[in-house]
Amino acid sequence: MEAFSDGVIAVAITLLALNLAVDGPHHGSLAHQLGQRWPVFVAYLVSFFTVGIIWVNHHALVEDIARVDRTMLFINLGLLCFIVAIPFGTALMATYLTVPGFDASLAMAIYCAILEGMSLGFGVLFWWTLGDGRRHNPIPPGNRWRVWVRFTMGGAGYVLALAVGFLSAPLALAVVGLIAVYYIFERTPSAYPTRQ
Amino acid sequence: MEAFSDGVIAVAITLLALNLAVDGPHHGSLAHQLGQRWPVFVAYLVSFFTVGIIWVNHHALVEDIARVDRTMLFINLGLLCFIVAIPFGTALMATYLTVPGFDASLAMAIYCAILEGMSLGFGVLFWWTLGDGRRHNPIPPGNRWRVWVRFTMGGAGYVLALAVGFLSAPLALAVVGLIAVYYIFERTPSAYPTRQ
Amino acid sequence: MEAFSDGVIAVAITLLALNLAVDGPHHGSLAHQLGQRWPVFVAYLVSFFTVGIIWVNHHALVEDIARVDRTMLFINLGLLCFIVAIPFGTALMATYLTVPGFDASLAMAIYCAILEGMSLGFGVLFWWTLGDGRRHNPIPPGNRWRVWVRFTMGGAGYVLALAVGFLSAPLALAVVGLIAVYYIFERTPSAYPTRQ
Amino acid sequence: MEAFSDGVIAVAITLLALNLAVDGPHHGSLAHQLGQRWPVFVAYLVSFFTVGIIWVNHHALVEDIARVDRTMLFINLGLLCFIVAIPFGTALMATYLTVPGFDASLAMAIYCAILEGMSLGFGVLFWWTLGDGRRHNPIPPGNRWRVWVRFTMGGAGYVLALAVGFLSAPLALAVVGLIAVYYIFERTPSAYPTRQ
Repeated sequence: MEAFSDGVIAVAITLLALNLAVDGPHHGSLAHQLGQRWPVFVAYLVSFFTVGIIWVNHHALVEDIARVDRTMLFINLGLLCFIVAIPFGTALMATYLTVPGFDASLAMAIYCAILEGMSLGFGVLFWWTLGDGRRHNPIPPGNRWRVWVRFTMGGAGYVLALAVGFLSAPLALAVVGLIAVYYIFERTPSAYPTRQ
Repeated sequence: MEAFSDGVIAVAITLLALNLAVDGPHHGSLAHQLGQRWPVFVAYLVSFFTVGIIWVNHHALVEDIARVDRTMLFINLGLLCFIVAIPFGTALMATYLTVPGFDASLAMAIYCAILEGMSLGFGVLFWWTLGDGRRHNPIPPGNRWRVWVRFTMGGAGYVLALAVGFLSAPLALAVVGLIAVYYIFERTPSAYPTRQ
Repeated sequence: MEAFSDGVIAVAITLLALNLAVDGPHHGSLAHQLGQRWPVFVAYLVSFFTVGIIWVNHHALVEDIARVDRTMLFINLGLLCFIVAIPFGTALMATYLTVPGFDASLAMAIYCAILEGMSLGFGVLFWWTLGDGRRHNPIPPGNRWRVWVRFTMGGAGYVLALAVGFLSAPLALAVVGLIAVYYIFERTPSAYPTRQ
Repeated sequence: MEAFSDGVIAVAITLLALNLAVDGPHHGSLAHQLGQRWPVFVAYLVSFFTVGIIWVNHHALVEDIARVDRTMLFINLGLLCFIVAIPFGTALMATYLTVPGFDASLAMAIYCAILEGMSLGFGVLFWWTLGDGRRHNPIPPGNRWRVWVRFTMGGAGYVLALAVGFLSAPLALAVVGLIAVYYIFERTPSAYPTRQ
């Protein structure tokens, strides 16, 4: 399960860079093209670190799983279904970010919805692993809800970003970037066993 | 064998998302473009879960193999040859799904034929592993035929979908989706050792 | 070394399918497009099995290596440099296969040259592993030359195919396909240890 | 950490070949097209071996790590962020290499900046692993600075190449190629433990 997920995430993160390509010599000066395409570069960075942090947390989560069952494989598949769609969502959002009108908000909403789906998939996977006998480092039943909420709080952030996107798409992108920063410091419980 | 197959399936499943891309700002409103492109999104979901379930079953099958020989490697290569073609078949089918006339049926027939080839490849691989001494959990000779039929029954489904596609391509896509649902619940024998 | 090579070969083999895409509804009937594009489908099959057999043999070869050194990593990198170029060579050859004139021969020559480079890289890697202390199943010095020639004979086949391509490009493709068939039956020494 | 990094590097190195594609039969003779596109082929070779050598050194570095912590995962992610951008930088640089004027220098500067970022990321990762208790083969504190400078000296080379690019972009590409040759012979300390 881990090797396959690692492979999918590795391919998805690398495909993010396909969107960076510029149009070539006959479409204005390179500096002008790059300046016009700043959303593509910012979107690459935000999505790269969002997916990268997913991988770090997925890794920490999966490592602690004591027993893989078929249900878990399918929850993981649902999670991967959203991760694989992130390069599409990133390209869509970056293409429309600076287009005036409703389309920028719609593209940002789709991007945020994909990230939200990924976050929910992650939350379901995490919840499933909290069950008795499923983790090497079990979490006491009384703490599970608290630990889970703290871990999946980023999901609320993507809903917020989606809403902000209807006011300003670039501002929503900043919110998504901040969620990535939040997840750098926040972690799965297996990453801080001493606090259990 | 497993690492390579995992890699190929991981790349193939991620390439499915390349087809989601829209044309960009100068081709009508984004909502309109997305509405027109619904077959692409449905096709992505159906193919993603079809390939994902292949992986789950491939994994369960390969894990139980006690001895890998050269024949098995080549059967597996034949299976991968069809899996690698799934992103092509998916894109083709989605592009033509709502085009009036024969082409929608032809594109759907090609998609179903690729899935059928994958299913047959899987069936051959499974049959090969049923031989004496090839599995950790051997299946008694008297049960093999029954187990094999049950496992490869999905292949009949793809023939049905192919035929349905000549009446209605979207209906055929629904059949393919139902086969994926069938395989979520049906499984390789190694997945339920207690019933052996 | 094996995991990385497996990853590269898995991506390369999956990228072969990108070339299968057709132009879409407004470029003639689908049947007509598919008929015109037969070289693309034949080229996919030939290259898929050529790369697949490379993987099988690479796997058998690497599995038997007792000690990986830096020289071997760089020989392997040279080999991968040609393998990664195979999807390009395949697309080029398929695009020009039925174009009248010199370009079909030139495109076929480039395809064969890439396969020849891959074959030579493989030969060098194999020769390196024959050295004392490098294999789990060492081959007696007196047999090495004979074993090596037999294993790398396919390389002569690609030179032949390149030459044939100047008479007829489709005929050269048939030769490349026959070499793949040859390698299905021929194998690295580690694959038949009982004969040593 | 190694499997994921291997996967990302394997995909990135394989995507380099996507840029080799020619325009097809109706854009002049194939020989002419290939002649015009020589920068693409040279750039492929230089970037392939640059990324390949990164992998060899990354592998040697990671293999010697005794303890992976979260900080290291994020440093590695920063490094991968530049590696993933190399196919973009390569395509950009190759497209503009022979375009007269400032754009060739700008494209080369972006390519060199990506390689410089990769080199710095590698340097930070290497520095982090030098800390007490982090390596299987620890390096005495007195030698660390010397070892680190020698290992990351290539980074200075990319700054040089960037500067040279403002005089002549093709000359800068030659410098980048020479840095790859330098790294073939120079190595991480874990690769020559006997000298410690």
